[in-house]
Amino acid sequence: MATPETVGSLGEIEALKRTVSRLNQGEHSIVGSGDDAAVVATTDDRFVVTTDTMIEGHDFRLDWSSFYDLGFKAIATNVSDVAAMGATPTALVVAISVPATTPIANLEAFADGLREGCQQLAPGAAVVGGDLAASDQVFISVTAHGALNGLEPVLRSGAKVGDTVAVAGTLGRAAAGLALLSSGNTDAVSAYDDFVAVQLRPRPPISAGPEAASSGATSMLDVSDGLIKDAARIARASNVTIALHRKDLDGFVAMVEEPARAISANALDWVLFGGEDHSLLATFTQGAVVPKQFKPIGVVAEANTPAGVTLDGEIVPERGWDSILG
Amino acid sequence: MATPETVGSLGEIEALKRTVSRLNQGEHSIVGSGDDAAVVATTDDRFVVTTDTMIEGHDFRLDWSSFYDLGFKAIATNVSDVAAMGATPTALVVAISVPATTPIANLEAFADGLREGCQQLAPGAAVVGGDLAASDQVFISVTAHGALNGLEPVLRSGAKVGDTVAVAGTLGRAAAGLALLSSGNTDAVSAYDDFVAVQLRPRPPISAGPEAASSGATSMLDVSDGLIKDAARIARASNVTIALHRKDLDGFVAMVEEPARAISANALDWVLFGGEDHSLLATFTQGAVVPKQFKPIGVVAEANTPAGVTLDGEIVPERGWDSILG
Repeated sequence: MATPETVGSLGEIEALKRTVSRLNQGEHSIVGSGDDAAVVATTDDRFVVTTDTMIEGHDFRLDWSSFYDLGFKAIATNVSDVAAMGATPTALVVAISVPATTPIANLEAFADGLREGCQQLAPGAAVVGGDLAASDQVFISVTAHGALNGLEPVLRSGAKVGDTVAVAGTLGRAAAGLALLSSGNTDAVSAYDDFVAVQLRPRPPISAGPEAASSGATSMLDVSDGLIKDAARIARASNVTIALHRKDLDGFVAMVEEPARAISANALDWVLFGGEDHSLLATFTQGAVVPKQFKPIGVVAEANTPAGVTLDGEIVPERGWDSILG
Repeated sequence: MATPETVGSLGEIEALKRTVSRLNQGEHSIVGSGDDAAVVATTDDRFVVTTDTMIEGHDFRLDWSSFYDLGFKAIATNVSDVAAMGATPTALVVAISVPATTPIANLEAFADGLREGCQQLAPGAAVVGGDLAASDQVFISVTAHGALNGLEPVLRSGAKVGDTVAVAGTLGRAAAGLALLSSGNTDAVSAYDDFVAVQLRPRPPISAGPEAASSGATSMLDVSDGLIKDAARIARASNVTIALHRKDLDGFVAMVEEPARAISANALDWVLFGGEDHSLLATFTQGAVVPKQFKPIGVVAEANTPAGVTLDGEIVPERGWDSILG
């Protein structure tokens, strides 16, 4: 059997060429990769920018995620932050470093994941530049950009008392997927592989972001660290209480009850504290038409509790992911 | 003695707060760090974007570079790529991951380096967002943005036969610094510490980029991997030969002859093949006024050699840095 070609055997230039050739073109790139920098078109005189890092052993495990998965997830988590500002994703730059012994096929699969992530989640957006280097651990760092199309960005700080709290996308499904993988129960993993898929290749509702902005959302963020933890961020930034209604979460809980039973986990816990679904949590002025993709789950109340979030009036202690502490 | 506070003992939120508070504000940030994404102003309906990664043990050594140095260099290398498009740097996002045992003082010093890098090299530009995580190696990934102010971007592909080849900034000084550090000759390192400083905290001539664009530069890039290697990139992209004149490099060689003698190295080698000065190499239409910061070093000739670069008519073999192969 021939020795597989590796990133190290090919060198930076050839490895990059093989990877870049698999990316899509996008609709906003004026100058693409290959020069000192790319040039990207915007729709007005502002652009949205966000960055996120994924590190082997910390944010992902190579025995759970394929390189295709990593590419797809890198796009998903970043365009989700763009959408959470009310913007439409336009262009991304991606830095990846891998051990020199990594087969080039893995890097090609990563590029496929990047391309598919863009095409499926944020059509028109594309990777316009990047960087490839060698390291011991796999590191992936993505910066995503978006266009506001003349709308004002939707911040975390604009929620007003009386607003409707609503969520677009799923809650607890990515946590279910992670718990299934962690359980080591291979029967459960195959039985509930669509939950595992949400963990490995999340599909945030990107179009809901600009839709919320057009509908006059007063605040918004993407639920990356868990509903309660992220709702508390809106509460603190807006100086309000996010008062959630337990019965409005029933549908989300029902969706994850089967896998929870299979591995003796708590479905409500996943819905309240599970991260990485990258759903959009937003507030809308009382009486405004909430866009169809959003489901109301509570109201904005006076800031009368330091915790910031209540469930049927009870304070919910914050729990969730810290990227240093885990 | 009290245990020093570490990134791990503080957690992500507090460690970020300590770091972000040391950054400057910048003139182009509409929404700064702390939301899902930042919002940056541009001067027209396009923006320039570039990304670069620095990895411990591969791109830097912590026994040579302080965290302040790393912050400064991260800014320098990235705004240099923005300037090489003819753009003015406006905003950057920075992802850093460090071992959880890293003292918070190191992260604060890194932020100081970021701030000083912006203020000294690209006034008005600032870090508008970022990401902090834990890893085994130190990993720094920066994405820089720039505004074209209505000018066309200067690509690598526009050099025309008869153009003047010129360089702004230093050549071989960063290589001298690296060689001094590698020599282990501590006397030489202190005697020539200004060369070491160019390696650790490069000062690319950022304003020369937009200046070249206004003066109608036909091609440009930043010399990050060595004069010959980077000149060959213009040659290939423009399908021309870059014909360098040895006597026009005399001044650059003279500038590094003393440290070369001190450690028995070859000064011309540093000038031709040394990377990381991040000077700007550009071509200007024959007879056009070359901006003062640029020094002519050759002309653009017909593409009659596959190598792409000649020195006094002789083909120069390409050598230089490959980010995978070293």
